[in-house]
Amino acid sequence: MLHGKVLVAQGGGPTAVINQSVAGVVLEARKFRNVDLVYGAWHGVRGIVNEDFLDLTQETSHNLEMVADTPSSALGSTRDKPDLKYCQEIFKVLKAHGIAYFFYVGGNDSSDTVRIVSEEARKAGYPLRCMHIPKTIDNDLVLNDHTPGFPSAARFVAQSFMGANLDNAALPGVYLAVVMGRHAGFLTAASALGKKFPDDGPHLIYLPERTFKVEKFLGDVKATMDKHGRCVVAVSEGIHDETGAPIVTQLAKEVEKDAHGNIQLSGTGALADLLCDEIKGKLGYKRVRGDTFGYLQRSFVGCVSDVDQREAREVGEKAVQFAMWGQNDGSVTIQRTGFYSVDYKLMPLEAVAGKTRTMEDAFISESGTDVTDAFRMYLRPLLGKGMPDAFRLRLNNVPKVLNP
Amino acid sequence: MLHGKVLVAQGGGPTAVINQSVAGVVLEARKFRNVDLVYGAWHGVRGIVNEDFLDLTQETSHNLEMVADTPSSALGSTRDKPDLKYCQEIFKVLKAHGIAYFFYVGGNDSSDTVRIVSEEARKAGYPLRCMHIPKTIDNDLVLNDHTPGFPSAARFVAQSFMGANLDNAALPGVYLAVVMGRHAGFLTAASALGKKFPDDGPHLIYLPERTFKVEKFLGDVKATMDKHGRCVVAVSEGIHDETGAPIVTQLAKEVEKDAHGNIQLSGTGALADLLCDEIKGKLGYKRVRGDTFGYLQRSFVGCVSDVDQREAREVGEKAVQFAMWGQNDGSVTIQRTGFYSVDYKLMPLEAVAGKTRTMEDAFISESGTDVTDAFRMYLRPLLGKGMPDAFRLRLNNVPKVLNP
Repeated sequence: MLHGKVLVAQGGGPTAVINQSVAGVVLEARKFRNVDLVYGAWHGVRGIVNEDFLDLTQETSHNLEMVADTPSSALGSTRDKPDLKYCQEIFKVLKAHGIAYFFYVGGNDSSDTVRIVSEEARKAGYPLRCMHIPKTIDNDLVLNDHTPGFPSAARFVAQSFMGANLDNAALPGVYLAVVMGRHAGFLTAASALGKKFPDDGPHLIYLPERTFKVEKFLGDVKATMDKHGRCVVAVSEGIHDETGAPIVTQLAKEVEKDAHGNIQLSGTGALADLLCDEIKGKLGYKRVRGDTFGYLQRSFVGCVSDVDQREAREVGEKAVQFAMWGQNDGSVTIQRTGFYSVDYKLMPLEAVAGKTRTMEDAFISESGTDVTDAFRMYLRPLLGKGMPDAFRLRLNNVPKVLNP
Repeated sequence: MLHGKVLVAQGGGPTAVINQSVAGVVLEARKFRNVDLVYGAWHGVRGIVNEDFLDLTQETSHNLEMVADTPSSALGSTRDKPDLKYCQEIFKVLKAHGIAYFFYVGGNDSSDTVRIVSEEARKAGYPLRCMHIPKTIDNDLVLNDHTPGFPSAARFVAQSFMGANLDNAALPGVYLAVVMGRHAGFLTAASALGKKFPDDGPHLIYLPERTFKVEKFLGDVKATMDKHGRCVVAVSEGIHDETGAPIVTQLAKEVEKDAHGNIQLSGTGALADLLCDEIKGKLGYKRVRGDTFGYLQRSFVGCVSDVDQREAREVGEKAVQFAMWGQNDGSVTIQRTGFYSVDYKLMPLEAVAGKTRTMEDAFISESGTDVTDAFRMYLRPLLGKGMPDAFRLRLNNVPKVLNP
């Protein structure tokens, strides 16, 4: 076992359970006698190069448990994507502070940072154990059954669509909501888990794994309106045309061409608004509403999967166990072992770093606008216990008197 | 006691607890021997004129309880605002079906419908008891301490800002979210209940009860950024200039003028996007994000106040009791009697119908961009039990080594 300090940091977008992983690292690391102190970096890799460290051996176990239950990154995060030079700066600081164990909780970019720092340490012959701990609501890390943060965000999306479908049934029309996930459609697909009855929405689901054609989309919406008199649509923010160009740009260009002016498309509500305009303009429906779930889906307080919480805790704890009792740097991954149970494996950093997973074909229906039962089987156990359920009145119709 | 059928209907925008009121009416009304049958109108007053009725004496108590716990209007709703002629049609149908008791769950417009139908019955000498049951997430009904539906929506908004504040603290910048409430700022003001520590957001709250000036707004944002290095803003969708013109129109005009073209402003994300553009363009901050809570705040499944649930149930039950044991038509109102307890009073329909309550001055801080402790005392008990809490790590800083 290496002797020295432990450093833990958080990178990228916050999740509902990312603090569980930090608590897992800190509480486990504090048990080991070869650990001098446990530091937390303030705002990820940016905090490391700035030497902004918190001494987490001064933090009470009780408060760590409270923080673990609090969403978003308690150590602060960063959008910095370190290049080689940046990673060399990181390594310099780690050495200066006598860090022997480096744990970084994050997604693709973060795992690549860990990989480069690990290489720098090896090249310099400095004894440093580097561990990547998975986290991302997009669920786009390879070699993982799923990633911590995704189940809670998926639960938020499923519950949102469950409610939106009830709202749309009460006041019929077209309802469309844009969900996060630029390259992987897992989170958008989670909207399907809000369905109960056969005529429930979302009736249409558009994923970045399939090419989006505006004309086809309008046809799908019309067919749904003809069938149900209402239509609930889930759209991934990452939908694109056959060239890979985002649909938001394509629609904005059309508007630009029409108006002979420049439109700044910087707001997050743009895609939903533009798709609604298409529906109103070309199909003529009056009641068309578009929402963009925005930041709520990754930071809403009070909608969390207990499965996600315990797994996020465990990947942190396992990272320390792999680091202390093992001989290799790596990325902790989640492997499904039953319906439902998981185990954790340490994978080489090169096998995970910088790679992007997208939805398997088996998860997407042939129509391209729905998910399969395989996906429902995959996702349901991740959402955890206490999922809300929606009930409706039975249609015991009364005979008409005036106009029978 | 009148002898005949009972009819219950739901109007206006759905809430998280509006089905509790229907369950309260149905379960209580089914106990009375002078009641022939209990009908529900399908999609509010529209369902009445179309004679689209469900026989709710065929519905199990168990399913009624399940539906009561389900958000949105289980009987369907409508945006129809009946005029005199429409109300005469309603009255004609009520008479034809032998309705002796009419219960309408809704807001301002719905109470006015009940008032007109009540007058028509009196003029015709037809024995009809008409009851308005309050409901609105806007909390804008006069003579009520608050209205069912508001507490659960307020809880959603408070929890949303609690999470958004944590997200913004992890990745600093400007975060702005637009909240429902065209004339009354109660729901936007509820964002303040997500605050815990003095530097928590929302740092700025813009209500329709105060005139919105874009220059002042930009100054407020800059001052907050200078002080905290980040800024969380809650904005009511109803903000307007001194002439009462919506800010979204004003900003859209500016953009139009700049671009020499036409921009269609039909999407719900427009106000947030335009305000973000102002901040980016005039203050130069890079990380500026705008969300619009949209339909989530009134129909999200799984964020409900238990206080709201029981009160929504009680106003339904009380409406039946007032109707059966009393001699007057009216509107059921909620009166606060303790910290925290309530009682219900029947008020004349004319006293409630068509009137709009806005936030009391005592609830708004002198700055106009925050709420007072009086508002916190007012709102906190309504949010119910089990409100989430946010915890942070204590700042036990580590001395720097390389750059001390």
